[in-house]
Amino acid sequence: MSASAPIASLRQALGVEAVRDDIAERIAYSYDNSRMQALPEAVVFAHSHDEVVKVVRTCREARTPLVVRGRGTNTTGASVPTEGGIVLSLEGMQRILDYRPADRLLVCEAGTLNGAVQEQAAADGLFWAPDPTSTGYSTVGGNIACGAGGPRAVKYGTTREALLGLRAVDGHGETLICGCRTSKGVVGYDLTRLLVGSEGTLAIVTEATLRLLPRPSARRDMRAAFSDVNSAAAAVARIMGQAAIPCALELMDEQCVALAQAHTPLDLPAGTGALLLLSADGDEASIANEIAAIARAAEGDGLLEWRAAADEADAASVWGARKALSPALRSLAPKKINEDVAVPVSRLAELLAGLREQSARHGLQIVNFGHAGNGNIHVNILADPDDPSQMATVDACLDAVFTLVLSLGGTLSGEHGVGVAKRDFVAREIDATTLARMRDIKRLFDPDGILNPGKTLPAAPGGTVIATEGC
Amino acid sequence: MSASAPIASLRQALGVEAVRDDIAERIAYSYDNSRMQALPEAVVFAHSHDEVVKVVRTCREARTPLVVRGRGTNTTGASVPTEGGIVLSLEGMQRILDYRPADRLLVCEAGTLNGAVQEQAAADGLFWAPDPTSTGYSTVGGNIACGAGGPRAVKYGTTREALLGLRAVDGHGETLICGCRTSKGVVGYDLTRLLVGSEGTLAIVTEATLRLLPRPSARRDMRAAFSDVNSAAAAVARIMGQAAIPCALELMDEQCVALAQAHTPLDLPAGTGALLLLSADGDEASIANEIAAIARAAEGDGLLEWRAAADEADAASVWGARKALSPALRSLAPKKINEDVAVPVSRLAELLAGLREQSARHGLQIVNFGHAGNGNIHVNILADPDDPSQMATVDACLDAVFTLVLSLGGTLSGEHGVGVAKRDFVAREIDATTLARMRDIKRLFDPDGILNPGKTLPAAPGGTVIATEGC
Repeated sequence: MSASAPIASLRQALGVEAVRDDIAERIAYSYDNSRMQALPEAVVFAHSHDEVVKVVRTCREARTPLVVRGRGTNTTGASVPTEGGIVLSLEGMQRILDYRPADRLLVCEAGTLNGAVQEQAAADGLFWAPDPTSTGYSTVGGNIACGAGGPRAVKYGTTREALLGLRAVDGHGETLICGCRTSKGVVGYDLTRLLVGSEGTLAIVTEATLRLLPRPSARRDMRAAFSDVNSAAAAVARIMGQAAIPCALELMDEQCVALAQAHTPLDLPAGTGALLLLSADGDEASIANEIAAIARAAEGDGLLEWRAAADEADAASVWGARKALSPALRSLAPKKINEDVAVPVSRLAELLAGLREQSARHGLQIVNFGHAGNGNIHVNILADPDDPSQMATVDACLDAVFTLVLSLGGTLSGEHGVGVAKRDFVAREIDATTLARMRDIKRLFDPDGILNPGKTLPAAPGGTVIATEGC
Repeated sequence: MSASAPIASLRQALGVEAVRDDIAERIAYSYDNSRMQALPEAVVFAHSHDEVVKVVRTCREARTPLVVRGRGTNTTGASVPTEGGIVLSLEGMQRILDYRPADRLLVCEAGTLNGAVQEQAAADGLFWAPDPTSTGYSTVGGNIACGAGGPRAVKYGTTREALLGLRAVDGHGETLICGCRTSKGVVGYDLTRLLVGSEGTLAIVTEATLRLLPRPSARRDMRAAFSDVNSAAAAVARIMGQAAIPCALELMDEQCVALAQAHTPLDLPAGTGALLLLSADGDEASIANEIAAIARAAEGDGLLEWRAAADEADAASVWGARKALSPALRSLAPKKINEDVAVPVSRLAELLAGLREQSARHGLQIVNFGHAGNGNIHVNILADPDDPSQMATVDACLDAVFTLVLSLGGTLSGEHGVGVAKRDFVAREIDATTLARMRDIKRLFDPDGILNPGKTLPAAPGGTVIATEGC
C-alpha cells in the first residue's frame, strides 16, 4: 500500500485536533513494548464507536493501513505501524457504559484500563480474570486483541473465557455485535472468540461486555524451594494434577533465582536451584485446606523448603523473589529477547531441560520464569540486539527453542501473541490448510487488507515485506 | 438441491456395508429428539477422519446435503435431514485416541459418548464439564456441535470452555486442525470456538481435545422451598452474587412442583410455590462453609424451608422433586413445546412474571424449570401439536416469549441451539450486518452449502424452503 493517508478527510470527519501528524506525536505512537518501531503518517484519536466507523471507512477508501492501539504494552510489535498509515488510538474511549454486579458483567469502551475495571468491580467483591503484568496501564481492548493471560489464568482462565460479547468495526467499516449478556448462549456463530487474539487484524473492538467473577475473600502466598528445576517442574505437574488449583503457580529457574538474589538478598535455603511461587484463594475457612492440599502435592524429590505466609500481610516475605526479579530483569533490558511459549504441564521438565541444552549449545544465557501451572514459560535470552553476530546466534537458538516447544506438543505463544515477532514461525505450528482458511477469514473481514497489515498470520507467498525498526 | 445422493460413489469409497439406503435405516435416521422428521436418501457410517473426508468430497461433488449426526439427542431438529441427502453417522468413531490425566486432556473421536469420557476421566479424579441430560448417550461431537451445557455449567462452564482443540472436515472436504494441547494459546485465529455451536454447518468435527477438570472429592445437595417464584428468583440472584458458586442451581416453578407432586408425593412445606435445588462441591473440609455461604444467600423473603443433605447418600431425599419431574414431563410429551431461553440472572424474576402473564393471556399452561444460576430456563408450553388451532396460539405465545426474553437482554437459546426450531427467530437477536458476516463465514467454510443446509442461520432472502415433518 503506497497511497498516502487521507489526513484531510480524517480531519473533516473527526475534527482537526483528533488527527495529529506532527513528528512528536508520530514518534510517540511509532513503537510498542517490543523493540520494533515504525513511523505512522498520522495518529488519530477516536472518542466513540461511531468515530471508529468513520476512521475505518475513510482509511478503506484510501487503502491506508490502520493500526489500532490501546496503550502499546504488547511485546510483539502488534501495535507498531510497520506498513505506515494511521495509528488509531482508543485512549479517548474509557467510559464504563454499563455495570451490573448482580449479573457479574461490565460493559466498557475498549480504551478502558484493565485496572479501572478491576477497581470498579472490586467495590462489589468482583474481578475480571485477565491480569497481565501491565494490568494497571493496559487496556481492555488491548487485552482482547492479544488474548492476554497473567498469573491467575491458571485458575480463572484468560481473556477468551472472560468475555460475554463485543462491539467491533470490521474492515468493511461495518459494525459487528457479537455475543450476548447471559452466561450461556448458543445463537449464531461465535464471533466473540474469533476476535479474541486477532490483534486488530479482523476488526477493531470498540466495546466489550466483560464476564466478572466473585473475588474470594482470602488469599495466601507460598514459596517452595527446590534443589533443581526438574524437581520443581515435577512438582508443578503434581500440583496441577489435584483438585486444589492455586490462583498463581509461578516458576523461577536457577538463573532467575541468581538474578533476583543479586538484586535483593533473599532468605533461601542453600542449594536452591529453582523456586515455585504460589498463591491460593478461597474463604478464610477453606483456605487452610487448599494450602494443605497444594503443600502435599508439592512434596517430593528435591523439595528443600516450603513456606506459607501466615496471612496476607506476610505475602511480601514469601513472594519477595518474584518481586526482586522484575527490576533485575529490567536492568538487563533491552539486552534480552523475551519469548513466551507453553507446553502441556507434564512436559515442563523436558522443556526446561531442553532450554538448558540450547543455552549451553549456543553459549547464550537463558533465564526462564513464568506461569508454570499453564506450562507457560517466558524464555529470556540475554543478548545484545545491537550485536549482529550475537543476534545471529540468538536466531539459531530461538529456532531450536521453537522446534523443541512444538515437539513437546506446545504452542509458540501462551499469552503474548504473534504480532510481527512470531509471524514467521506460525506456519510451523498451524498447518497450511488451516492457515489458508484463516487467511480467507482475514479477507472476509478486511477485504482490502487495511487492518493491521503484516501481523498475526504469516505472509502469503508474494506478500509484502515488513519494514521494522524504521523511523 | 435436487441432485440425487451419490450412493454408488460413497459405496465405492467406504464399502457397501457403510452406506445404507434401505427404508428401515433411512427412517431410523430421519429424526432427532425434536418433533421433526425428514427422510435421508441414505445413511453413511464413517469409521475414521479419512472416511469423513471422502464422504464430504463425494457429497460436494454431487452437491448432496450432508447432515452429520451423533446420537440425535438434540431438541431443535439440527440433525434432521430436512433437505434430504445423506445422514452421516459418527457412531462408529468412538475411540479415545490419547488420554493424559497429568495434562488434564483427553483426545477422542467425535462419536465417543460423553459418558464414556466421564468414565475414563473419573478413574483419575477428573471430569469433562458438559453434562447435558443426555450425558450417558449423547456424543462429544454432538455436544460440540450444539454447544451443550447442563446443570454444572453454572460453576464449570459449557462446551465452549471445555475444549482445547479440534480436528474437522470443512465443506471443501479439507482438514482443519484447530487449537492446541496447552491450557493457554494465542497463535492464529480461534477456529475451535467458531465451530462450537455451529451445528455441523461449517465443518464436521471428527476429533476433539477435551479440557478436563479435577473432580472435587465431596458433593452435597440442598433444597430451598419458597412461597412463590419471585422470591426464588430473587434468591438465585443473591446466590449468584456471592463467591461460593453452587455446582448446580436449578429452579422449579409452581406448575413444575405440582407436576412432580402428582407423580411422586414430596415432603414439601405447605404453600410451596417454587423450589430451588442446589448442589455444592469441594473437599470435605471446605464444603460445609460453601453450603453455609449459599444458605445465607438463599435467606430472604418467601423462604419457607432450607434443607441440606447430611451426606451424599442423603441426596435423593432433597433432590427428589427434580427426579420426579422428569417422568412427569415425559408422560406429558409429546404434548409440550420445550423452549430454552436465558436472561441475565437479575432479570429472572421479570422473565418468570412475564411467562405467567403470557400463560394467562394465551390460556396455555406453561411449566418452567431449568438452570437458574445461568438464567437459563426451559419453558415448556403444554399443548397438543396435532391440534392446529392450539398450535396457532402456541406460536403467538412463543413469539411473545421471545420478545420478552430479548427485551430483558436475554438470548433465545442458552444451550439447546437453533437447529430448525429457532431459525426463524435468530434475526431478532442478531442484527442484519452481523448475520451477513456469519453467512459469509458459512460460504467460506462450505461454498456449496452442502453441510447441514437449512440450519442455524436464518434463510437469506430467496433461500430454500425447509420441509419438516416429512417422511
